[in-house]
Amino acid sequence: MKRIIISAAALLICAASFAQQALWGAPQVVSPQINEDNSVTFRLHAPKAVRVHVTGDFLPAEGVAKEAVPQFAEMTEKDGIWEYTTGPLASELYSYSFIVDGLKILDPNNVYINRDVASVTNILITGGGQGDLYKVNDVPHGSVTKVWYDSPTLGLKRRMTVYTPAGYEQNRKQKYPVFYLLHGAGGDEEAWMDLGRTSQILDNLIAQGKAEPMIVVMTNGNAGEVAAPGQGPDGFRTPGFQQKGMMDGAFEMSFADVVKFIESNYRVYKDKKHRAIAGLSMGGYHSLHISKYYPDMFDYVGLFSAAARFHEDSESPVYQNEKEQIARQFANAPSLYWIAIGNTDFLYEENVKLRQHFDQMGYPYEYYESEDGHIWRNWRIYLTMFVPRLFK
Amino acid sequence: MKRIIISAAALLICAASFAQQALWGAPQVVSPQINEDNSVTFRLHAPKAVRVHVTGDFLPAEGVAKEAVPQFAEMTEKDGIWEYTTGPLASELYSYSFIVDGLKILDPNNVYINRDVASVTNILITGGGQGDLYKVNDVPHGSVTKVWYDSPTLGLKRRMTVYTPAGYEQNRKQKYPVFYLLHGAGGDEEAWMDLGRTSQILDNLIAQGKAEPMIVVMTNGNAGEVAAPGQGPDGFRTPGFQQKGMMDGAFEMSFADVVKFIESNYRVYKDKKHRAIAGLSMGGYHSLHISKYYPDMFDYVGLFSAAARFHEDSESPVYQNEKEQIARQFANAPSLYWIAIGNTDFLYEENVKLRQHFDQMGYPYEYYESEDGHIWRNWRIYLTMFVPRLFK
Repeated sequence: MKRIIISAAALLICAASFAQQALWGAPQVVSPQINEDNSVTFRLHAPKAVRVHVTGDFLPAEGVAKEAVPQFAEMTEKDGIWEYTTGPLASELYSYSFIVDGLKILDPNNVYINRDVASVTNILITGGGQGDLYKVNDVPHGSVTKVWYDSPTLGLKRRMTVYTPAGYEQNRKQKYPVFYLLHGAGGDEEAWMDLGRTSQILDNLIAQGKAEPMIVVMTNGNAGEVAAPGQGPDGFRTPGFQQKGMMDGAFEMSFADVVKFIESNYRVYKDKKHRAIAGLSMGGYHSLHISKYYPDMFDYVGLFSAAARFHEDSESPVYQNEKEQIARQFANAPSLYWIAIGNTDFLYEENVKLRQHFDQMGYPYEYYESEDGHIWRNWRIYLTMFVPRLFK
Repeated sequence: MKRIIISAAALLICAASFAQQALWGAPQVVSPQINEDNSVTFRLHAPKAVRVHVTGDFLPAEGVAKEAVPQFAEMTEKDGIWEYTTGPLASELYSYSFIVDGLKILDPNNVYINRDVASVTNILITGGGQGDLYKVNDVPHGSVTKVWYDSPTLGLKRRMTVYTPAGYEQNRKQKYPVFYLLHGAGGDEEAWMDLGRTSQILDNLIAQGKAEPMIVVMTNGNAGEVAAPGQGPDGFRTPGFQQKGMMDGAFEMSFADVVKFIESNYRVYKDKKHRAIAGLSMGGYHSLHISKYYPDMFDYVGLFSAAARFHEDSESPVYQNEKEQIARQFANAPSLYWIAIGNTDFLYEENVKLRQHFDQMGYPYEYYESEDGHIWRNWRIYLTMFVPRLFK
């Protein structure tokens, strides 16, 4: 056969003509650029724009709920390229967007993106501290599976995310403890992975010897939904905070189906000592109620910025005689009941009241109060604090 | 305890204040809107914009490589909302972006997004035909796992994507055949899932009884990389077509490591009859070379718009005596050797020459020629044609 001379390079050149930058003829700009001192330079090529701002959670926030109103920083233009450099930033994961003459857009030079409910923003990570726990480092990596389980209680097949730690495939005789990790209102079985960086946090803490190898199960807490937006048969629906079956007891009641699926399909210990549950906001509410409704199931409970309320007026068995339920739970108290919230969180007062009840009744718990409010930065931090406490 | 009166609704209202639309004060517009006749209406609220276009692969393309230069459709403005309605579209998955005064942006009302190398675009699916195979329908769903495997040949731990069909967890005694599905230049272990809709296609074809339940393994074909951009220790790097170790024989040589990992960790048949391999573009090249270098491994081979070339000048053992290698493969010919390409593909001539060699030598194969060129629409279609032919 005649030797074909077209080289790999030709394939690349031809294919590259489909790429974004070739298409739009924009000059190559680097954005975001993380500088030596952890300041970050944002750039955008927009020669026709009149005003360009960058906004994101690296900027100080203002307003009653601090986290609700991030500020905007004005970018300056030279040769059609708009630029803004922050001061040195703490090591963290940040999200940001550009505002071009009032229109919110993503950074066309950054393909790294998170969806938070219906908001899509770019992300970046500054290193040298807490943010290193959110990076993919050169350590052994766990596996992450999107799997459908059967919930007879809800009459649905439902999707969940399961993290199995590095070595799970090889160590065929090892059993693992299980940590159930629940999202908040507007979230789903993707939230803790994408916004919460759970697999990176677990990989890193386990590799550092700070956490036990464990399986982490991230469910969908909207009992009337089967899966995250776009992952179920209702198509590419617009995500919203209001999902079907959020806080009506149905999810809590069905939780035994989740545990049963995991304990039937993974090499796990099947006793209280090896089960943990935690969640943020609505997921903290779910953790509160699931752990009291199944009082002997979990030895570790975490409420992260929880909707820490009882629902004694509801008809669900989950919400009947709630104080008795919680008394039963604490008759054989969990090894760790951990309550964390930020000092400007709009749910702060609910947590004060829950703790007052616990104090009054002598129920043991630990409390951690952080700065700031109802934001993912806090939930990631709480996760990195809670996980090392488990199964020890 | 005093009943806490704050309701779930209050939590939602408070949380909703973080949402995009509340933040930006934009009026609620629906975009994209898929109309009764499969025309699609795009809308964008951009009161300060002077000209707005929509571009995407639903528009006719022009130029030598048809797929390289999509056209732009001008949108018209009323009350600050720009709008464009297409004619009725064939049932397909389409990608699109807006161009606002020269700046390419995503549709802020559509959170559904694909990354193709360094380009991020919105997607939509029109139903009633081929596109239905790309939707999540109300059928049993397989699981999708991102897992790290050991490649001693490459000296790396590497990431891959594994689809296991619905029922895999329950049918503990059933063994499955395995289909290895390879991406093109600039792609990675995410490409066939995100751009190729593989899990949806498999779920749907299996549910319709048109395909055998099978495991699909989607590798990373860049032998010098361990994972997709952002999923490895090199951080949030900018994706490009040029990756490490693309077409130098290393990936092909290491493929036995992939097969070994799968056959050690999944309930699969371990013989030629139950193994298939296919890939697009560079992945077609890899499939050509892997299946000839391991001549008794695969009973089904698919080249989708393949870089269908030999590399007889390379030092890799994979590329030595290539015609003898392929003769050995066809001494015990695969049940199906399937070559598909579009009639405007820039790799068309290479495929003509490969087929001439096969014809000359009397090697059996099937050939399918489609419209259009080197585009994901073709590769999804080829997948829906190839998969029903496997393991029967």
